[in-house]
Amino acid sequence: MGKKYVYFFGKGKADGNGKMKDLLGGKGAGLAEMSRSGVPVPPGFTITTEVCNYFYENKKKLPKDFKAQFDQSIKKLEGAMKKKFGSTEDPLLVSVRSGAKFSMPGMMDTILNLGLNDKAVEGLAAKTGNTRFAWDAYRRFIQMYGNVVMGIEKNVFEHILEAKKESKGVKNDTDLDTDDLKQIVDKYKAAYKEKTGEDFPQDPYVQLCGARDAVFKSWMNDRAIHYRKMNKIPDDLGTGVNVQAMVFGNMGSDSGTGVGFTRNPSTGDKMFYGEYLTNAQGEDVVAGVRTPKPINELEKEMPGVYNQLRGITSRLEKHYKDVQDFEFTIEKNNLYMLQTRNGKRTAQAAIKIATQMVKENLISKEEALMRLQPEQIDQLLHPVIDTNEKLNVIAKGLPASPGAAVGQAVFTADEAVEKAKNGPVLLVRTETCPDDIHGMEVAKGILTARGGMTSHAAVVARGMGTPCVAGCEAIKVNETAKKFEVKGKTYNEGDWVTIDGSTGNVIDGKVKTIEPEISGEFGVFMKWADAIRRLGVRANADIPRDAKKALEFGAQGIGLCRTEHMFFAEERLPFMQQMILAENEQERRKALDKLFPFQKEDFKGLLKEMKGYGVTIRTLDPPLHEFLPKTREEAQELSNKIGIPADKIWAKSHELHEFNPMLGHRGCRLGITYPELTEMQAKAIIAAACELAKEGIKVIPEIMIPLVGSVAELKDQKAVVVKIADETMKEYGVKVKYMVGTMIEVPRGAVTADEIAREAEFFSFGTNDLTQMGFGFSRDDAGKFIKIYVDKKIMKADPFQTLDQDGIGQLVKIAVEKGKKARKDIKLGICGEHGGDPDSVKFCHRVGLNYVSCSPFRVPIARLAAAQAVIEGKRAKKKNGKAK
Amino acid sequence: MGKKYVYFFGKGKADGNGKMKDLLGGKGAGLAEMSRSGVPVPPGFTITTEVCNYFYENKKKLPKDFKAQFDQSIKKLEGAMKKKFGSTEDPLLVSVRSGAKFSMPGMMDTILNLGLNDKAVEGLAAKTGNTRFAWDAYRRFIQMYGNVVMGIEKNVFEHILEAKKESKGVKNDTDLDTDDLKQIVDKYKAAYKEKTGEDFPQDPYVQLCGARDAVFKSWMNDRAIHYRKMNKIPDDLGTGVNVQAMVFGNMGSDSGTGVGFTRNPSTGDKMFYGEYLTNAQGEDVVAGVRTPKPINELEKEMPGVYNQLRGITSRLEKHYKDVQDFEFTIEKNNLYMLQTRNGKRTAQAAIKIATQMVKENLISKEEALMRLQPEQIDQLLHPVIDTNEKLNVIAKGLPASPGAAVGQAVFTADEAVEKAKNGPVLLVRTETCPDDIHGMEVAKGILTARGGMTSHAAVVARGMGTPCVAGCEAIKVNETAKKFEVKGKTYNEGDWVTIDGSTGNVIDGKVKTIEPEISGEFGVFMKWADAIRRLGVRANADIPRDAKKALEFGAQGIGLCRTEHMFFAEERLPFMQQMILAENEQERRKALDKLFPFQKEDFKGLLKEMKGYGVTIRTLDPPLHEFLPKTREEAQELSNKIGIPADKIWAKSHELHEFNPMLGHRGCRLGITYPELTEMQAKAIIAAACELAKEGIKVIPEIMIPLVGSVAELKDQKAVVVKIADETMKEYGVKVKYMVGTMIEVPRGAVTADEIAREAEFFSFGTNDLTQMGFGFSRDDAGKFIKIYVDKKIMKADPFQTLDQDGIGQLVKIAVEKGKKARKDIKLGICGEHGGDPDSVKFCHRVGLNYVSCSPFRVPIARLAAAQAVIEGKRAKKKNGKAK
Repeated sequence: MGKKYVYFFGKGKADGNGKMKDLLGGKGAGLAEMSRSGVPVPPGFTITTEVCNYFYENKKKLPKDFKAQFDQSIKKLEGAMKKKFGSTEDPLLVSVRSGAKFSMPGMMDTILNLGLNDKAVEGLAAKTGNTRFAWDAYRRFIQMYGNVVMGIEKNVFEHILEAKKESKGVKNDTDLDTDDLKQIVDKYKAAYKEKTGEDFPQDPYVQLCGARDAVFKSWMNDRAIHYRKMNKIPDDLGTGVNVQAMVFGNMGSDSGTGVGFTRNPSTGDKMFYGEYLTNAQGEDVVAGVRTPKPINELEKEMPGVYNQLRGITSRLEKHYKDVQDFEFTIEKNNLYMLQTRNGKRTAQAAIKIATQMVKENLISKEEALMRLQPEQIDQLLHPVIDTNEKLNVIAKGLPASPGAAVGQAVFTADEAVEKAKNGPVLLVRTETCPDDIHGMEVAKGILTARGGMTSHAAVVARGMGTPCVAGCEAIKVNETAKKFEVKGKTYNEGDWVTIDGSTGNVIDGKVKTIEPEISGEFGVFMKWADAIRRLGVRANADIPRDAKKALEFGAQGIGLCRTEHMFFAEERLPFMQQMILAENEQERRKALDKLFPFQKEDFKGLLKEMKGYGVTIRTLDPPLHEFLPKTREEAQELSNKIGIPADKIWAKSHELHEFNPMLGHRGCRLGITYPELTEMQAKAIIAAACELAKEGIKVIPEIMIPLVGSVAELKDQKAVVVKIADETMKEYGVKVKYMVGTMIEVPRGAVTADEIAREAEFFSFGTNDLTQMGFGFSRDDAGKFIKIYVDKKIMKADPFQTLDQDGIGQLVKIAVEKGKKARKDIKLGICGEHGGDPDSVKFCHRVGLNYVSCSPFRVPIARLAAAQAVIEGKRAKKKNGKAK
Repeated sequence: MGKKYVYFFGKGKADGNGKMKDLLGGKGAGLAEMSRSGVPVPPGFTITTEVCNYFYENKKKLPKDFKAQFDQSIKKLEGAMKKKFGSTEDPLLVSVRSGAKFSMPGMMDTILNLGLNDKAVEGLAAKTGNTRFAWDAYRRFIQMYGNVVMGIEKNVFEHILEAKKESKGVKNDTDLDTDDLKQIVDKYKAAYKEKTGEDFPQDPYVQLCGARDAVFKSWMNDRAIHYRKMNKIPDDLGTGVNVQAMVFGNMGSDSGTGVGFTRNPSTGDKMFYGEYLTNAQGEDVVAGVRTPKPINELEKEMPGVYNQLRGITSRLEKHYKDVQDFEFTIEKNNLYMLQTRNGKRTAQAAIKIATQMVKENLISKEEALMRLQPEQIDQLLHPVIDTNEKLNVIAKGLPASPGAAVGQAVFTADEAVEKAKNGPVLLVRTETCPDDIHGMEVAKGILTARGGMTSHAAVVARGMGTPCVAGCEAIKVNETAKKFEVKGKTYNEGDWVTIDGSTGNVIDGKVKTIEPEISGEFGVFMKWADAIRRLGVRANADIPRDAKKALEFGAQGIGLCRTEHMFFAEERLPFMQQMILAENEQERRKALDKLFPFQKEDFKGLLKEMKGYGVTIRTLDPPLHEFLPKTREEAQELSNKIGIPADKIWAKSHELHEFNPMLGHRGCRLGITYPELTEMQAKAIIAAACELAKEGIKVIPEIMIPLVGSVAELKDQKAVVVKIADETMKEYGVKVKYMVGTMIEVPRGAVTADEIAREAEFFSFGTNDLTQMGFGFSRDDAGKFIKIYVDKKIMKADPFQTLDQDGIGQLVKIAVEKGKKARKDIKLGICGEHGGDPDSVKFCHRVGLNYVSCSPFRVPIARLAAAQAVIEGKRAKKKNGKAK
């Protein structure tokens, strides 16, 4: 015998089982499993996903052996139901449903009542003694078949139905009698012929083949493709086709149909949850044509059925050890389960359910931790848009920093500060730059027209926990005129705008949002995660406020303090600018001396806040021109402030201009060309540590040299740091422990990591830059073509969002291996944006890093992902063990 | 016994030998070798380079065991010479000379006549019977010792000497008598005491220690450090110190001293070549105080000595199998050889000597090929500045394209074209861009204020063979005002300027240059190189003219044709711009259709020129904004030309602007977003090939997709190429062989080369971009800090000039290994600028590439480097074999 393409189920038996999701799809596997465990499901058979894939790979043909198995299964089903396909007495009717490995709600099309034709309808009427039902079923079938299989627009049929109701002066479908329905059937068939050029097929076998192929085709419809792309589901999984004997919920008031959950999927409360309709088919519930009743009413209406249903579903929950989302039909007081699957739920519900199931001894803590997608935690930490609101989405950008924000539009940082005194503001800019910080701090949300997921706006907003939609190219911002335009409409300063940083939506006007609530179960859940994870989780934070937030979210140290952010504050920037404009080292040192006390206090604050935990402080990284005026006017302003001629300032700005600043004079290259810069920073760090040490506060500063591509660079800067540290500790008369390490963010640094490790006590992977340089993608420019790449499937995902494990990950791996070889106890971390991306966190675990560092609001996400990485590792090991 | 620090030589014996250059320095090893082989050299001893290194590593102290060996050697020398140090009767006098492993002419200081003091001078006078000579020697010694050991300025002594001559009314030193010299000695000693606070040391042992340490110290003087940096000699080799008994060429007319070469070092002619002075010390020859006589006059003056000298030196040449550069002294008709070493020579001489020595059966062809530094070939291909000219060097930039050029300054490409009709012009610009090509083509030389060794100006100039000095930051160019300023002086349009692209010098005015001459020996020599090398050598060429040049220089194909250069021609650019400004694909295709015939003809020309050889054609690479106007005015001009509103053009320029164009929308990213672009280019290439094939001309186009970082990108573009190729060949009814491959220039491409090789038939390493991305250095911006890096020894060399083998080379290695693993017969080449750098070429050989490709003028250099790589490989293998 050849390959098995069709799997039968029913009557307490099944060819397949619940584990065969790859082959049978989730629905098919579920039906098989239920059937095996004695749950009353209508019998039927599943055509495997392999047939679907064959269909696509072979110009929509089917495998050679398929037809025989298919025909045989139909015979078997007829036997099981004791009905015949197309019988004029007691015809077999079937449903045809899709079912892929992953649930794709609303994506695939379903056909019911298949098998009816002009003769069978009479047979059905005779057998059930319900002529009206039979004709209504036939009417529904033609409509569904015409629409789904033949692609006839729905309104073609709806017009006919509406016209009939109008002519009869009735409102509801149920008010139509058999004759009405017969007339409608005739009109439907006529419409069918008009639209397709063919008669409506009378042969049930032809109908079944048509429906089957329609399911296959729907695998590649736009909605399905879109859904898979959104959910990162590969295209080559294929869908199964489930053919199942029909049972009827519309056979009178002793019949009905419904859907339900074993627990509340919104709150997680342990309560039987669902809704049903009497005298209706499943599609009525789903389509929302009639308003269904809450499931507890079923207890009164049909107590026996209700109890049976509760018994079965709680058995199913125990069996699957998870909340079940089920569909059922009652045919003349007989209960049939049509489907069951693990229920989708909100983050809040997921945590409550998982923790309760642990208490109920239903699942282990490890299993509980796997029940929440780390990304979902975001829902718990940020305001969300009220789902009851009707949204006028005017544009879509990148979901750069999660949460919803409502505010009046402002267009400059200064305006933001001014207007924020009177109410919430939303900062709208073409792009942000470091001197917008003060405005970003007061804004409820940030919207930019340009820049990617790791643009300045995105990075800073995530650090602050402020919602942000970035790179929203549809809007044209005019900062001077204080307005932005989108699709022909203009928004001026003061106009209300809402953004959803979790979806990227930009919404017209003021929309109601819901503040997050953190439950007690969340704390319990996260403790479990902490107990199991190996990977440390730190936060990226530049100021004590962020550090405090990070601690609240469970960070165990700071993985990245960007010292440059400290230079943009109003009272410091002029000194920074004087330093840059200095003619010689002496002048430069004078300006640096003025910056020194500020820096020392910065570091003291940060080290104090994080006492006991490591704090990684990076020496100056960005190119110096970022601190200088961008326009002639700004140069004049600065000149007025600091007394240096505007021409000179402007000339310096010009001189420092770079064609590719990302690959320019920045990172350790600054410290190497101006050692006095590193000296000042090292002194400020060590002095801060010494002063705290004298107060008896434990501190561990870790000085990190950025953009190191060769060991000679690190050696140079380390020598400066060590010299200054020795001097400073001598000055204070106290010894403090400190470390010197480096970022690995330049590809050359990764491939020569062994040499670098001889000097570096730690590596922190700067995967943002490593991605930029590894791919040759400027994160500020690549947004445009990365979108096209993802659409064309040249890339699975934006590599700035999720670490590209195949390529950039290899550079990380090489560096880890070489680094450990050269220095056994080297500390390894990551401080790029990827440190907060669950998939990337798991990669970091697997590759053997010691910690990840991410923005404070992503710390809980990273903690959970780190725990899941351990569990997944164990499971994979177990699986491999078994495979042997 | 401990380590041996002092090696004695003399009287036909020696502790050391000629192979011990590391330990004894070149001079010390040479003296030992000569002594061993019976050449008459004054006896002496050599202090090893290890002592010098110890001196520097131990705060200028000497090894413990050293003193005993040193003292013993002095005794032995006294014995050998039968003289005593400080004797009042027959004092031993010695010379003290430095001598490192590599000859460093003029870099190290020498002391002669050491051992003289107030008493010994009388002894010397008595023994030689020449009082004047003795006092002159003493006078010279104090002067030299005071200057070299104690750092007293030369003019202190010269003033005393001049004053004496003036007071006596004489012109020459020789006109001074003994009394004069005695008075001078007194004044010298007084000056010595005044300057140093100490008496002139009378103890010869103290003198010797002082001189020895002065030699050690001179290893780290600025000139020495600079020379080593220029010649890439490590600092930790150290110098030897040679202490050798003095012999005197100034003992009358039967004495003398001279220097010579066994062959002419300028022309390579086999003739005894040199000069000498009678009654003089060696320093007189070197210092050029008196004009020496040509050596053939010695034959008449002292025929016996002359014949002995010829005999010895020709023996030495045979012994060392190379031209000898020797020094000798005749003391009362006795010949002493003071030094011999392999002579430096011009490129022309090197080739002539090497080829003749092969004919003479003195050396093998392989040995001959090692006798020329590949880089030297450049001297043979470009005009050079006449060494007799006095140069007013006004600035120094990067030696971006070799050769000297003289011309009148012009500041725009259009001016260049205009003015070039009347005489030679030199194009001076802040930086060049692709639309300057027409000006660059007519200019004799190019000078830019910004940009590195691989900036646009540098790359294009090298391709054309036009001399270029780039990144000359000292000059401030004002294109609008048509002038440049340097050190306060202004040069206007029409002013004469000379540049030396081999040194980076910018010279005021019109300087005489010498045109290159290529000798017959050069052809012979290069044939030997071709016979031995394994590596293919191709050229980077975009147009038939360059391809022709490349063939002349021995290229075996084109390794890189940059198709974008074709789009800048005046009649094509507007179509390119229309393509970019197109609103949709259809408009874009219309513009591309107009470009198609041009491209087809371009490729036909190139393929025809190179018939039989492979021609690698790269699809469009640069970002599109490079083709659009840079200013509002240019946008208006273009608008007038092509009828598209200036606002729209300007808006598009703005839209396409990128923060980091190097990491932006370029390379295959263009072809992926606009497949019609690749389609047009593929069609033009295949159509050209088909048309030539029909004419019976053999062609092998190799279509190369740039900037591939993942196999999916290549797959996408390859599919486009293959589809178009199939269609086009069908259209022409002819089959042509073509290949599809990729550049490996993105680090991610290198680490995933195994995947990429499954699609690519060849890899060409784009080491320019690989260096940019691997280091994170923008080649347009990094010039500034790379200079500092090289000065601080953080880098050995500019990685854009010489491939960084440790880092970027590792990426190449990884890609080679992975590529070969996935596709055994994959063709591997390099087309970055490094393809013409000898060290990089040798690396390419070792790493297993099939060919290198470089600018036409560097093809001969690469051919020789490739041959040397084979020879070096054989030698290393032999050495390793022996080591086993």
